[in-house]
Amino acid sequence: MTKQSVLTLVGAGPGDPELITIKAIRALEAADVILYDALANDVLLDYCKSAQVTRFVGKRYGCHALSQNEINDLILYYCSRFQNVVRLKGGDPFIFGRAQEEIDVAIASGIKVRIVPGISSAMAVPASQNIPLTCRGISESFWVVTGTNRNNELSKDIYLAAQSTATIVILMAMSKLEEICDIFVNFGKGEIPAAIIQNGTTIHAKMVTGTIKDIAYRAAAAAMENPAIIVFGEVVRLNRDMVISQVRELQTPNQIDATKC
Amino acid sequence: MTKQSVLTLVGAGPGDPELITIKAIRALEAADVILYDALANDVLLDYCKSAQVTRFVGKRYGCHALSQNEINDLILYYCSRFQNVVRLKGGDPFIFGRAQEEIDVAIASGIKVRIVPGISSAMAVPASQNIPLTCRGISESFWVVTGTNRNNELSKDIYLAAQSTATIVILMAMSKLEEICDIFVNFGKGEIPAAIIQNGTTIHAKMVTGTIKDIAYRAAAAAMENPAIIVFGEVVRLNRDMVISQVRELQTPNQIDATKC
Repeated sequence: MTKQSVLTLVGAGPGDPELITIKAIRALEAADVILYDALANDVLLDYCKSAQVTRFVGKRYGCHALSQNEINDLILYYCSRFQNVVRLKGGDPFIFGRAQEEIDVAIASGIKVRIVPGISSAMAVPASQNIPLTCRGISESFWVVTGTNRNNELSKDIYLAAQSTATIVILMAMSKLEEICDIFVNFGKGEIPAAIIQNGTTIHAKMVTGTIKDIAYRAAAAAMENPAIIVFGEVVRLNRDMVISQVRELQTPNQIDATKC
Repeated sequence: MTKQSVLTLVGAGPGDPELITIKAIRALEAADVILYDALANDVLLDYCKSAQVTRFVGKRYGCHALSQNEINDLILYYCSRFQNVVRLKGGDPFIFGRAQEEIDVAIASGIKVRIVPGISSAMAVPASQNIPLTCRGISESFWVVTGTNRNNELSKDIYLAAQSTATIVILMAMSKLEEICDIFVNFGKGEIPAAIIQNGTTIHAKMVTGTIKDIAYRAAAAAMENPAIIVFGEVVRLNRDMVISQVRELQTPNQIDATKC
């Protein structure tokens, strides 16, 4: 293990390859090794000009190419042989990215760690459909929740979120959508506008809107699947007012009606 | 008003000028007019190669250069005379950015609107101090709250946040710090680790850590002031474990002890 080796955790952004930062590109350009997750767009690897190794270690749709322990071992292996190792992760490394496990193993071996934040899909995907997470007079906060915790159970935070007035963004939750909606409905939130956005910020993006009480039905009817982001909140209504062209492959007049005030 | 005029709301990122996206830079390069807020770093204006007008319209430390109505009027004025008008905002336009008011006025006048997300300081500033907002087994969600609502009152969401298990990030709240901490203490959260980060992601960054019950005292002793981000949550402890050099001008051994498990 050389004392100079640095592990840089880089956020690749939400899908649109232009939503990567200058800092991230400089880290990719300087990297000797890139260990990358499933990215929405592999064009980002074109920045890896001097990399001697570019290796896919990620998961796609829940199916791991490698376990976290195997990824950790690879980090140590490459850091012992190269100076600049980049761990390229979708979105932001510190938002549900399991960054800490990789940081811990690196630091325990004397490797320096650097973080390059990325744009999280939790914000950028709603934004790409013109849904702001906050809006003066409508929503003063937003809460980003994962659908399932590490035991594959529904996160208890979902129950608290259902009682709040925040805009709620739920990631990695399509398999538990009905269960989540039922919790919100039980707290009297059935009429709150809801949106589900699949492949957000990419040309394959599609969105279904409705209310919390019917969004699971609408999503099933439209065959929405992962990767998708769920948004609950009055801010979803603001989407209707935008005039710029959007990808709304699945919207019918009926679906638009459902979000009307 | 020409039919071709487009208003692009661009997120400038959290302060570090390298934390701007390729998409934002392309929007700046193509802009005829840039209306910009107080940015942590004016070097971003170097990207405005073909702009005929670059005009400061923002606020700095609560002091508005122009009212929101005056900004809205300027948007209409410039969109009637130029094709590409960029509204450059710190962080992300859709996170407490009052984007909707500018979007509404533009759309009502037939101007097309485009959003370019930015990295919000809510995520990047904690990350720059190696504080992840989520961490497997420690925090399954994060809640971003503004300190004050449009009536300059404490947001009611603060009371709900104080009851949740989420990592809490509070923006624009230094003037109400003591009041906010008291609410959390009343809900039994006094021992939860807390951090306040001023000028995050820039070379002027400084951080104070402690617990919710003593962070207001520590922040006052260290003369912490806006712009600053408040983070409450067990994830604050993870900061201690990082080895890469950080700006910790104000940390004393005593302050570090306060976050120990």
